[in-house]
Amino acid sequence: MQPATSAEPITSREAAVEADRRDPLSAHRDAFVVEESGPIYLDGNSLGRQPRSTAPRILALLEAWGRELIGGWDHWIELPVRVGDRIGALIGAGPGQVVIGDSTTVNLYKLAHAALDAQPARTTIVADSHDFPTVRYVLEGVAGARGGQLRLIDSDPVEGLDVTSVAGALDPDVGLVCLSGVNYRSGARLDLAGAAAAAHDVGALVLWDLSHAAGSVPVALDDDGADLAVGCSYKYLNGGPGAPAWMYVRRDLQDHLRQPIWGWWGRRDPFDMAPGYLPAAGMSRFLSGTPAVVGLAGIDAGLEEIEAVGMAALWARTARLTDLLAQRIEVRLAPLGAHLFSPTDPARRGGHLGVAHPQAWGLCRLAIDRGLVVGDFRPPDVVRLAPVPLYTRFVDVWDAVERLAVVLADPDVRSPPPRRTVT
Amino acid sequence: MQPATSAEPITSREAAVEADRRDPLSAHRDAFVVEESGPIYLDGNSLGRQPRSTAPRILALLEAWGRELIGGWDHWIELPVRVGDRIGALIGAGPGQVVIGDSTTVNLYKLAHAALDAQPARTTIVADSHDFPTVRYVLEGVAGARGGQLRLIDSDPVEGLDVTSVAGALDPDVGLVCLSGVNYRSGARLDLAGAAAAAHDVGALVLWDLSHAAGSVPVALDDDGADLAVGCSYKYLNGGPGAPAWMYVRRDLQDHLRQPIWGWWGRRDPFDMAPGYLPAAGMSRFLSGTPAVVGLAGIDAGLEEIEAVGMAALWARTARLTDLLAQRIEVRLAPLGAHLFSPTDPARRGGHLGVAHPQAWGLCRLAIDRGLVVGDFRPPDVVRLAPVPLYTRFVDVWDAVERLAVVLADPDVRSPPPRRTVT
Repeated sequence: MQPATSAEPITSREAAVEADRRDPLSAHRDAFVVEESGPIYLDGNSLGRQPRSTAPRILALLEAWGRELIGGWDHWIELPVRVGDRIGALIGAGPGQVVIGDSTTVNLYKLAHAALDAQPARTTIVADSHDFPTVRYVLEGVAGARGGQLRLIDSDPVEGLDVTSVAGALDPDVGLVCLSGVNYRSGARLDLAGAAAAAHDVGALVLWDLSHAAGSVPVALDDDGADLAVGCSYKYLNGGPGAPAWMYVRRDLQDHLRQPIWGWWGRRDPFDMAPGYLPAAGMSRFLSGTPAVVGLAGIDAGLEEIEAVGMAALWARTARLTDLLAQRIEVRLAPLGAHLFSPTDPARRGGHLGVAHPQAWGLCRLAIDRGLVVGDFRPPDVVRLAPVPLYTRFVDVWDAVERLAVVLADPDVRSPPPRRTVT
Repeated sequence: MQPATSAEPITSREAAVEADRRDPLSAHRDAFVVEESGPIYLDGNSLGRQPRSTAPRILALLEAWGRELIGGWDHWIELPVRVGDRIGALIGAGPGQVVIGDSTTVNLYKLAHAALDAQPARTTIVADSHDFPTVRYVLEGVAGARGGQLRLIDSDPVEGLDVTSVAGALDPDVGLVCLSGVNYRSGARLDLAGAAAAAHDVGALVLWDLSHAAGSVPVALDDDGADLAVGCSYKYLNGGPGAPAWMYVRRDLQDHLRQPIWGWWGRRDPFDMAPGYLPAAGMSRFLSGTPAVVGLAGIDAGLEEIEAVGMAALWARTARLTDLLAQRIEVRLAPLGAHLFSPTDPARRGGHLGVAHPQAWGLCRLAIDRGLVVGDFRPPDVVRLAPVPLYTRFVDVWDAVERLAVVLADPDVRSPPPRRTVT
């Protein structure tokens, strides 16, 4: 993993403003819909901001639907593969290994199922006790359905998993190791290459959930020995609420795996409508039903911005932003009883940080209700803050922590409205 | 099933124009995007036309995403249930029994799985040999995964299934009977109440695919003893290409069934993010991942038009349109070697008709390429034609058949470009 980029520390608001002025990436903020009078948005790891080019793209799709009607499928049919390849390029996957379709949950189900079906003698799935709930739930269901076992590694909720812990949980019963590239709460990064090597040592396959990693941290799926991966497109890829998810299957595995949901879009020669299911060659066999064209049409808009910057430059800016955020949390929030709920080593961090505090819910809720800062609460006591580099300024990070300090010092933080968080 | 409405026969183009003039439903055509210089569109049973209010609705969603960001989930979270109930009202389902999520294929998989899991002693699924391919493929996969059997009834490809044939295929091994309300090719309607009663007689559950029925023919799920149903929203519901699908589970079954894809949106208290999967109460347990909000936002537009007319009036007009279409096929295309590939009894027909001819592919392709009529080809030799009552005029039906007769008489119909059909 690349370490965080070192840069001159930012120790004043003026220096933050100056850092924004000097960084050529600052200009990309203009490519997004931003209401400047609104709160500071640090929740792009939950729902990314909207690129300004999204609406024109979706209107163009609607125009095509209105004019071409069924004929539009002549080009829409390519979308799952074409957009998939584009996402693949951001995560180190060569063409023909990524497709878009369904939700992250459904994709995870399909690939976990396919991985176990390919190795009938192995019935154990290894996962992280602190992984995102849907990952744990899906795997619990997949393992249970075949009388297998979901073995949860009792990870450190802040530091995440190291390769030694992963290796220690493995044995020849393990068919699949399913972990997240970046932890949804603490932002801890997994050493994907190391974990893949450990899994392969016992003959297991790996499946990465990259929902909090794709478009944020450097990922090199092909080089780092990934077998399978999934991720959403509505966080760092800015595809919009509920935009369809993607999945990756390493090329030489594709024709050896069969996913369980046998729809016509995954069949060889689907428009023959012939009897009996025969999986298509390559990635198409991992599709099931008709692709969500309206939802897919907007995804290109977000990818364009990331491609224009490039993942390396984006990651360098992310590292500077999260370093500043961590430093300001230490200076301003630690004296108020908060602490960083993320690895202290910048090289182990992803694109967001957690802040733990007994009044984390009150802090999150009041900061939103007062129009100051939007983060999100994660039980039991963490606020997640993501300074997404395409549209978050250094001065936003500075100001956000100042505002959070004010809220945290307010006695009202102890009596917030009842909780109801989403995504 | 209601019979087709009888009305004075239309025997001239002038009478067709006059029928349009007299029918108050004709005005609803204005609510859709229609390029009047374009071909006559008879493929709304594959991809419905776009309501004019779709674009404003989707733009409003984009505006909400841009302004409210993550806060938009406070209302988006209700979409799967709210839009589900609205579709439910069109198919005779009381509130709390329909949700939107995923594709028809994925929903079919979930419900077929859930139905068999609830009856471990029954491993046979009964389906129709002439049903839409994805239905057969999904069921083949579900049955095979548990060592069960998919028993295909060898139905009549034109007349479809009668209740006697369904009953004859049933025995106590059958856990699930999965059939379509309207056949995708011939348009034959199934007696849903009769088929459900036959299945219940042997203790099996029923699962209806209503993709070609919902929003077209009268359906009374609650009254007719349905257990489970699924359908898409991009045909007669006009939701747009790849719009998310819906599923129905009869209220008293909901808490006894568990679907296999255990995502956080189907869990009790999803935002607790607690260990272990516990299915939510009611319909929410049939959800898996994050709902496709961008795709969902447009569905209301199509529903609004159908609600404004009402299913009874819509169906009465459908019956008049298909009667005229059948009559014109007989008069103009039969002498050219074509025949109706749909039940001759109007009471057994749905919203579209099939026309069989050895040069069906050439007929379909040339009619499209020459900008005359858009139907769609279904192997081996059928063109489907759907005069969708919200936007198809009587004169369109008249003219479409005239144009098809010209194409069919053209020697070029025997040498069309190679086939590549979609959806």
